[in-house]
Amino acid sequence: MTYKLVLLRHGESEWNAKNLFTGWVDVPLSEKGIEEARRGGALLTEAGVTPDVVHTSLLRRAIMTANLALDAADRHWIPVKRSWRLNERHYGALQGKNKKETLAEFGEEQFMTWRRSYDVPPPEIELGSEYSQDTDPRYEGAPLVRTEALKQVLDRALPYWESEIVPDLKDGRTVLVAAHGNSLRALVKHLDGVSDEAIAGLNIPTGIPLYYELDEDFRPTTPGGTYLDPEAAKDAIAAVANQGR
Amino acid sequence: MTYKLVLLRHGESEWNAKNLFTGWVDVPLSEKGIEEARRGGALLTEAGVTPDVVHTSLLRRAIMTANLALDAADRHWIPVKRSWRLNERHYGALQGKNKKETLAEFGEEQFMTWRRSYDVPPPEIELGSEYSQDTDPRYEGAPLVRTEALKQVLDRALPYWESEIVPDLKDGRTVLVAAHGNSLRALVKHLDGVSDEAIAGLNIPTGIPLYYELDEDFRPTTPGGTYLDPEAAKDAIAAVANQGR
Repeated sequence: MTYKLVLLRHGESEWNAKNLFTGWVDVPLSEKGIEEARRGGALLTEAGVTPDVVHTSLLRRAIMTANLALDAADRHWIPVKRSWRLNERHYGALQGKNKKETLAEFGEEQFMTWRRSYDVPPPEIELGSEYSQDTDPRYEGAPLVRTEALKQVLDRALPYWESEIVPDLKDGRTVLVAAHGNSLRALVKHLDGVSDEAIAGLNIPTGIPLYYELDEDFRPTTPGGTYLDPEAAKDAIAAVANQGR
Repeated sequence: MTYKLVLLRHGESEWNAKNLFTGWVDVPLSEKGIEEARRGGALLTEAGVTPDVVHTSLLRRAIMTANLALDAADRHWIPVKRSWRLNERHYGALQGKNKKETLAEFGEEQFMTWRRSYDVPPPEIELGSEYSQDTDPRYEGAPLVRTEALKQVLDRALPYWESEIVPDLKDGRTVLVAAHGNSLRALVKHLDGVSDEAIAGLNIPTGIPLYYELDEDFRPTTPGGTYLDPEAAKDAIAAVANQGR
């Protein structure tokens, strides 16, 4: 008896294409991102992986990715659950800023610390400012988030993993999680037992389903899981690593 | 204290455009249908109606309509529930057949009986045939459906109304139901107390949100509800009535 889990990072958004820090800003997929999502669904079908339930963040780039991929895989009708706990990392005061300009302004070391350190968050976003979500009705009832490092993402994603995703897996369902670079890195860190240091070097490509079989202790039978298009994943991982340069 | 309910019939599907009986056959929206769905979402925003939860059928034309309308209204992140009980009427052996040819083959009286009588269903569909859903995994656990009149649609939609939609309304949520001509007619028949005879003449236009406020006994404060674009609704109702002619 193994449990079946698929992680899917959303395709390119309009701000990815513009090289802006996005975080919780709710930008749509680009045309390329829409195509990536559809192709992700086709990869599920080709691999014979049929999700029985989908979990998404509250951000439209993950929601649209799930909608498009599931439609392409003829699984658009499965149950849906959503949570802010699967959101992208909140990028604090960097949200809305250009990555290249931020690099030039703050220098390589500070820039890479904010992007890749495990527990150093960027400065907090100003409440009420253009790219803050403090009055957004979708976060009613959730704690106020003003910035996050990957550690905080893991701290808020893990309770959702335990309380909502694990029970679906235990019911024998194939679970699709459609989410973001950092919320998925947090889950992978947990599943594969990646160290605080090594997680900095782990990139998840967009639009390529990452398939895990988990044993009865919820440990991967294949460490790191299996990308449903391994060649494309290899190329994409290299490209993500160069983002912002 | 009133309860707030919005009914939204999906936009044009590829088979509406081809004038085929669709029923439970899972065809996508046409380009026109996609535009109708987006416009439906814009009408929600203009009217200041903000759904807190959405209920859909298991058919992609209703699911896509909900996805597109909610995205346009910036409510793509709300909770989603789905059920076969909100599906379109199962059209039995007529599924996949051309409406005009069916009219020519069986004559006006039989044709109109199948289309509009309250309780005379079309002949049952042959199991295993091209347009039957008897082996479709999404209906696992549901009773086998081979044909329906409007009465059977009401009989299977009403338990869902009572057990899933009414509790959401009682929680004070604005509920969006994205569904089909006949499953929505069934709900309207129940809400407005329309007679078995009069329901034959009631058509619901596509893509125009129908807004109801319900009193504490779940009776409409305005009988028949309010279309969020009354002029367009009037024109569309006339057009629907002439379908198949």
